[in-house]
Amino acid sequence: MIVVKVGGGTTLDIDAIVADIVALRAKGTELVLVHGGAQTTNAVAEALGHPPQFVTSESGHVSRRTDRRTLEIFEMVYCGQLNKMWVEKLQRQGVNAVGLSGLDGRVFEGTRKDTLRIRVDGRRMVLRDDWTGTVERVNTRLLTLLTGAGYFPVLTPPGASSAGEAINVDGDRAAAMVAGALQAEALVILTDTPGLLRTFPDESTLIAGIPRAKADSFMQFAEGRMKKKVMGAVEAIGEGVGKVIFADGRVADPITRALAGAGTHIA
Amino acid sequence: MIVVKVGGGTTLDIDAIVADIVALRAKGTELVLVHGGAQTTNAVAEALGHPPQFVTSESGHVSRRTDRRTLEIFEMVYCGQLNKMWVEKLQRQGVNAVGLSGLDGRVFEGTRKDTLRIRVDGRRMVLRDDWTGTVERVNTRLLTLLTGAGYFPVLTPPGASSAGEAINVDGDRAAAMVAGALQAEALVILTDTPGLLRTFPDESTLIAGIPRAKADSFMQFAEGRMKKKVMGAVEAIGEGVGKVIFADGRVADPITRALAGAGTHIA
Repeated sequence: MIVVKVGGGTTLDIDAIVADIVALRAKGTELVLVHGGAQTTNAVAEALGHPPQFVTSESGHVSRRTDRRTLEIFEMVYCGQLNKMWVEKLQRQGVNAVGLSGLDGRVFEGTRKDTLRIRVDGRRMVLRDDWTGTVERVNTRLLTLLTGAGYFPVLTPPGASSAGEAINVDGDRAAAMVAGALQAEALVILTDTPGLLRTFPDESTLIAGIPRAKADSFMQFAEGRMKKKVMGAVEAIGEGVGKVIFADGRVADPITRALAGAGTHIA
Repeated sequence: MIVVKVGGGTTLDIDAIVADIVALRAKGTELVLVHGGAQTTNAVAEALGHPPQFVTSESGHVSRRTDRRTLEIFEMVYCGQLNKMWVEKLQRQGVNAVGLSGLDGRVFEGTRKDTLRIRVDGRRMVLRDDWTGTVERVNTRLLTLLTGAGYFPVLTPPGASSAGEAINVDGDRAAAMVAGALQAEALVILTDTPGLLRTFPDESTLIAGIPRAKADSFMQFAEGRMKKKVMGAVEAIGEGVGKVIFADGRVADPITRALAGAGTHIA
């Protein structure tokens, strides 16, 4: 089993990723896809007059504010626009794809962090009406029910809280949990860089390999939105996933190339 | 098996429908939900600067124009905003709901009508880039796989063409096909009227019963968007569904009341 995570970056070659999924399945490789969509969500939120807001936690961590309206727009983009785009592209190539959010059948289940302690201009505040959380369990029963019957799961946030509420969860960390729960041979994370770079954005500084025991120490090389991806990688390794590969999603045969050695391998 | 169709009308009591599904399932009644969302789609399309367009076919039938951008907005609202709203509300009440569009696992499969012959100011035109179609097959294998494992399917358009393209299909007629394919005891269609009215919108003119052999002739009483609902009812009866009930979706226990005799029964 290979779990593929595709970010929401707009420069990724989606048709190449779809073609590679088709080719790998034809060779008998079992796959599950997890996708994101943050960039598109920001654009749609702007168009709908509810632009993204970011808040700084007490510990200095910057994160997206997910009020109820943001959650709704998030679902429109992730579960509607993008999930159905992936499912349609796969169906057109003969893959019997089934798109699910983490809310459906509680595929991604976790805890809602319903209050957020933030700092605004140096003052502490408690923010309520926040719909974020962290994936703690993956409903592998539903996933294996579908894969066992020949369907190809296409997964996306949000997840479900234990009370059944929709929660905005990080897609990379959700993919890591899926890979761990399915004891995947590999988690392939496709982004708009060739892998993890020692000096971002200099692509000649690609880090080819990281021993699994040292994955933690490579967090220092992760910039911006790569941070959560590396955090997900560290978690996946901890959950027993064979290897985590950061690879280029802008090229032909991106998954096949990653499995053959391209990108950054954490193993 | 009871198939419940809920329209996109904004006056329906969604929480009452959810509570009734929970109560019926607790009594051992098997159910499948199909929902629409046309009214919300129109509002979102306006907000995104791509307002709904309607065209008149050569035969004088008025229908929504579904170009690619409209299809995308349709998916955002039906599969994102509304499907996940239903799934979340059900999950919060302990129902393990799984939301699927007709594209997922090709639950609703049919033929795409890729060119539309229309009349504009009396002149004939052929419209391409249209993404509509009609459901001809229902993937009952996926539905029974899910219901057999305890999941509650929440279905919504679009459907899939035989080539795997997304197609805008009518939700009422899709629900009728689902009810037929599952050989449902009843198809309950909840709308914002007490049922089929002899003189719309006079609610005192409710038609209580229609013999199944005469369903066709009652098409004359259907106004506006009720037309396709009655067309769906006629199809469902033709497919062997026990009865079709048009009932009020604005009241408490709407499904239970319908099954107990409220609304218009076609049987």
